Amino acid sequence: MLPFIRSAIRQLNAYKPHPGGTAGSPVSAPILLDRIDSNESPYDLPEELKQKLVSLCHKHIEANRYPDGSHLALKEAIAQYVNESAGLTERGVTPEQITLGNGSDELIRSVLVATCLQGEGSILVADPTFSMYAIIAETLGVPVVKVGRSPDSFEMDLEAATAAIQTPTHPPIRVVFVVHPNSPTGNALTAAEVEWLRQLPEEILVVIDEAYFEFSQQTLVPELLQRSNWLILRTFSKAFRLAAYRVGYAVGDENAIAALEKVRLPYNLPSVTQVAAQLAIAHRHQLLATIPQTLSEREHLYEALSQYPAFQVSKSAANFIFIRFNLPPDRANQAAEVLCQQLRAKGTVIRHTCGGLRITIGTPEENQRTQERLAGLLKDSDEFLASLACGAPH
Amino acid sequence: MLPFIRSAIRQLNAYKPHPGGTAGSPVSAPILLDRIDSNESPYDLPEELKQKLVSLCHKHIEANRYPDGSHLALKEAIAQYVNESAGLTERGVTPEQITLGNGSDELIRSVLVATCLQGEGSILVADPTFSMYAIIAETLGVPVVKVGRSPDSFEMDLEAATAAIQTPTHPPIRVVFVVHPNSPTGNALTAAEVEWLRQLPEEILVVIDEAYFEFSQQTLVPELLQRSNWLILRTFSKAFRLAAYRVGYAVGDENAIAALEKVRLPYNLPSVTQVAAQLAIAHRHQLLATIPQTLSEREHLYEALSQYPAFQVSKSAANFIFIRFNLPPDRANQAAEVLCQQLRAKGTVIRHTCGGLRITIGTPEENQRTQERLAGLLKDSDEFLASLACGAPH
Repeated sequence: MLPFIRSAIRQLNAYKPHPGGTAGSPVSAPILLDRIDSNESPYDLPEELKQKLVSLCHKHIEANRYPDGSHLALKEAIAQYVNESAGLTERGVTPEQITLGNGSDELIRSVLVATCLQGEGSILVADPTFSMYAIIAETLGVPVVKVGRSPDSFEMDLEAATAAIQTPTHPPIRVVFVVHPNSPTGNALTAAEVEWLRQLPEEILVVIDEAYFEFSQQTLVPELLQRSNWLILRTFSKAFRLAAYRVGYAVGDENAIAALEKVRLPYNLPSVTQVAAQLAIAHRHQLLATIPQTLSEREHLYEALSQYPAFQVSKSAANFIFIRFNLPPDRANQAAEVLCQQLRAKGTVIRHTCGGLRITIGTPEENQRTQERLAGLLKDSDEFLASLACGAPH
Repeated sequence: MLPFIRSAIRQLNAYKPHPGGTAGSPVSAPILLDRIDSNESPYDLPEELKQKLVSLCHKHIEANRYPDGSHLALKEAIAQYVNESAGLTERGVTPEQITLGNGSDELIRSVLVATCLQGEGSILVADPTFSMYAIIAETLGVPVVKVGRSPDSFEMDLEAATAAIQTPTHPPIRVVFVVHPNSPTGNALTAAEVEWLRQLPEEILVVIDEAYFEFSQQTLVPELLQRSNWLILRTFSKAFRLAAYRVGYAVGDENAIAALEKVRLPYNLPSVTQVAAQLAIAHRHQLLATIPQTLSEREHLYEALSQYPAFQVSKSAANFIFIRFNLPPDRANQAAEVLCQQLRAKGTVIRHTCGGLRITIGTPEENQRTQERLAGLLKDSDEFLASLACGAPH
């Protein structure tokens, strides 16, 4: 191996971007699969907004010029949206309390760089949760402390989390990451969990990832204004339908945001990305108008899935549902993998993760097909279980 | 200060994106300044390509879907371009030898993460050079060893560089960054410098930043194929006119590239960015057709600037020229600042950096105005120097 590559990096496996997104080339032919594996919105921008976006790009973006590195106009628009959606009519968050990243991924990395590098901190996560916290931490050599969750409610094991915080470790736990609601399990933070976050010492940064806020309509933004060690992450990749453009933002204490601004790359957001996010904010009522449909579709799917005795179906506050097989963990995992592959063969792509299956709420037609395809595969559950015994493909 | 922010980050100054790019909002009104401070191409994409780009985006990009995280189609196009432009007709670089970043900035960070973090390495640079190597290293806690350059030719002080490499340091020097040709000074690597790079031990990664390759037409790609510890950086932000889109690439040994792929964020390039870069490669002959004009304009400007006895003008292999005042360093720096501000007041934005002035080659009209404005400011050099004595604004 190459001697200049750190040994920790040599041992890492490369993260494989999942196969759900636009495959191969971004200009390849449209895919005929139901892609409900990535918690994307099933809807592209409305035609008139697409038109407006390309027209703005055509007329106002000079391709040869570096983007605005201050992001000021976008920060102002986001501050207004954050306050409006949190019901803050006065003294809400300011543009100085916002920083932008190439998706939340870049913000997670900036958080780790600003707080934990050089052996100064570890992070705490409660598994199962969004995998990128641990993946990015590992690339940076930041230790990850993991605690569990209740197998039923998926609430964090707060006793174990408290013990982990109180156990002297080197480096000490510097950041706690929670998702509200959590992915892949769909549960929002409970009152007990929020209370636990409140009592954490000020030396610990609490990162609350509200990627699915527009579906849950639950936010800790109002309380964040009183807490200098809380940081909220949001994204334009889900409800705002801009996954292709890669924009995330963080809201926090002005000094914490200033530190994150210091470690971000100066031109991290392309001009077109900034324009797209501004346009999405300007047309937020139109874009978010599909959310009630998503929520009612989620309830229908929940009912349909709950009818299978083979499944444990979790209540969700987000735009996806997590299910597990009522089987011992090893067999449950195998059954999930088989079902995932069989559904894919029928044209529906869902995500096998954390021992279960995560199904994004798609269009009504997609959700209908999901139910029909599942019914076809599971109508003879003996047959399905027999297929497991024959060995699952890998 | 916030106790969870690393002390090293607290002490950093935020990098201020320079004021040259599209100011304020990406959709703000066009700026009437001659922006020749950022080494951008003075030319936007030709109208028919802008049209084609927005049409591709409109028709083929689903805004709601994550981008292709493999970048495969773009890597294939880049491999072909790299080989063609290096005159490699067979056994050139493959797509597996290429990784893509959000500008070269992200690639620089990935290099440092893969090689130097956790106290495993320092980097060596020869000042003056591109500032982002040291800036990004500092945010990551990676020590930076600096050596000087010849005050006339700007060749690296190879004796000092050898001494730095041979002096045991903790951590050891793990990466050497060079720019070919260098910014802001414009000099390409000399035969002696390349020979020095060749004899570096295999434990040291040599990063050769060829951001200005299309202007210099000098590349070390053919030799890189034989050297597992060389990595070449390139960008679409200069000759390819895509600064607004943020695409850089690295070419290197397959294993080094695999390590960089492990540390990159999975969806680091928006879909539209990938489309724009592919389009630029497909129309490379058209886009690069303005280069001979830039080079001849550079020679005219060089002649014009050389007529001022006050200036030391450096020969350049890139799309910019570096000048310094023939004054003691302190006064030279002050004079440069004053002249930069006075030129700006007249409508021409150039860059005051490293004690001198870096002037990008613009359109013929811009270059003409630069000459006229300089002539106006310097026609009475006594008056100009007297303005210095009155104290320069900061």
